[in-house]
Amino acid sequence: MAADPEAIARAVLAGDQRLSARLMRDLDDARPGAVETMKHVYPHTGRAFVLGVTGNPGAGKSTVVDALIAHYRKAGKRVGVVAVDPTSPFSGGAILGDRIRMQRHATDDGVFIRSLATRGHLGGLSRSTGEVVAVLDAMGYDVVIVETVGVGQDEVDVVSQAETAIVVTVPGLGDEIQAIKAGILEIADVLVVNKSDREGADRTVRDLVSMLELRGHDAVPVEIVRTVATTGKGIDELVAAVERHRERGDRGGTGAGARRRRRAEATLREQVVDRLRRATDAALAARPDLVDQLAARTTDPYTAADELVRAITSKSW
Amino acid sequence: MAADPEAIARAVLAGDQRLSARLMRDLDDARPGAVETMKHVYPHTGRAFVLGVTGNPGAGKSTVVDALIAHYRKAGKRVGVVAVDPTSPFSGGAILGDRIRMQRHATDDGVFIRSLATRGHLGGLSRSTGEVVAVLDAMGYDVVIVETVGVGQDEVDVVSQAETAIVVTVPGLGDEIQAIKAGILEIADVLVVNKSDREGADRTVRDLVSMLELRGHDAVPVEIVRTVATTGKGIDELVAAVERHRERGDRGGTGAGARRRRRAEATLREQVVDRLRRATDAALAARPDLVDQLAARTTDPYTAADELVRAITSKSW
Repeated sequence: MAADPEAIARAVLAGDQRLSARLMRDLDDARPGAVETMKHVYPHTGRAFVLGVTGNPGAGKSTVVDALIAHYRKAGKRVGVVAVDPTSPFSGGAILGDRIRMQRHATDDGVFIRSLATRGHLGGLSRSTGEVVAVLDAMGYDVVIVETVGVGQDEVDVVSQAETAIVVTVPGLGDEIQAIKAGILEIADVLVVNKSDREGADRTVRDLVSMLELRGHDAVPVEIVRTVATTGKGIDELVAAVERHRERGDRGGTGAGARRRRRAEATLREQVVDRLRRATDAALAARPDLVDQLAARTTDPYTAADELVRAITSKSW
Repeated sequence: MAADPEAIARAVLAGDQRLSARLMRDLDDARPGAVETMKHVYPHTGRAFVLGVTGNPGAGKSTVVDALIAHYRKAGKRVGVVAVDPTSPFSGGAILGDRIRMQRHATDDGVFIRSLATRGHLGGLSRSTGEVVAVLDAMGYDVVIVETVGVGQDEVDVVSQAETAIVVTVPGLGDEIQAIKAGILEIADVLVVNKSDREGADRTVRDLVSMLELRGHDAVPVEIVRTVATTGKGIDELVAAVERHRERGDRGGTGAGARRRRRAEATLREQVVDRLRRATDAALAARPDLVDQLAARTTDPYTAADELVRAITSKSW
């Protein structure tokens, strides 16, 4: 492709799906041309509403996302989706690459779904997700949904950067509730108890209320919504709760500004760390002798790291 | 404490628990003195057998680890444990900080348990874990068990660096098996079906066998062991399977050497990335104007990152 970065940026801003998909791929490969294009794209971002969805495996996140897409489409909004998937070690592909909901919306021009694999990203997952969100935003999608399959730290970090973060759980997880308690409950702006027609839903809601109460009186309110996403039950209420959260965020001037600033800082940090990581990989590849010495314990990790850092910072890159 | 690094290193090598615990804390805070001490400690590492344990939440990992500790103690071995815990957002402390198994072995001088929180580590988890393992190794513990509570990418990375990695699951997880498939199965050297007296254990074993078969004929063999860790059932078989894996690793000269080299490279990379990360934090704190510009979209992340990287590499550190 010989097109110049500015021309590609214009195509992206016009919503060209083919060139936008290629830009996302090139960003993933960190091609210099892609970065040049993004410098033209970035000023046109910031209009989309970014919604994060995470939760326990098996809680029905994809079905909730599917129902949300249908809801927003009915309201005339264009929806972009970033599905952060763990890749299967055996197939090498994304587990959910062919999941049903993708088929359902595949022919809808108002929906654009992009899968991102978590493996092989070496910590660059947040950066990649942020870049895909920025491209979808610039393409003119009104709502961008970031869904993570896992609940690892990386995925939690990704979702916590959304304007509104939905955490989905289900009745009857037992010990699993511990996983929610630890780490992902704190990022929830709206909690969803999906499959709420199942036995134990009342108890799950009560447990969540108790956990939220532990946060004390001045904690930000978190709404709990019951859904049965397969039938669409509760999705209107979920969207309403999301809207209320969004308005609260928008209303408090300092709150929204602070959140925007935090996201800008996270974006910048990820860019820099990602570059430094690549530089580290290159420096390591250039110094196999240091690794050999360390394996033989004729040096220690600290002395070897000193040398490698000197090599990295003495280079211009 | 005015003691010099060499004196502290001698105390650590003599197994001094109080000074070793302080060294671990100082390493976590990245104190320069701690690094100096480690330069004297590191040459004396490499003798401990490092065993990793991870798996689904609720699978009974802690009980398996508890049973392993009891087994190795009976065999006269000294055991160090690094428990990588997610911290609770509400209590601020480690969820498992006071778990029962700690109480049980608290008075046993041959057992040393250290908890590491995953939160607030900003990717430095592997480095911290590696350093704690190195200290326990130098202190003379024969077996060092690294247990992770979560199954996020960070935790998987940590466990995959152990000489032998045990992945624990239980019957009846249903959809959860997908989480095993994705990411953690590939690091398993030995698979454990715990609570195997439960209904569905045969099916879980069959599912795991099928998944393993997908890897093809030349894949490294992975044993599946059934346990009921609460009663100790199957723990002898588990230890035997671990020993067989360990011997296979030791026997293949190139295999063990390659693994040692990979671990050395990972250790070195973590040291370097951790330092670069700290440098990035410092550079970000020094340039709040860059974050403001990015939040206002008067610059883009790439141009801002260029500036920050220049600031980082122009400094000597």
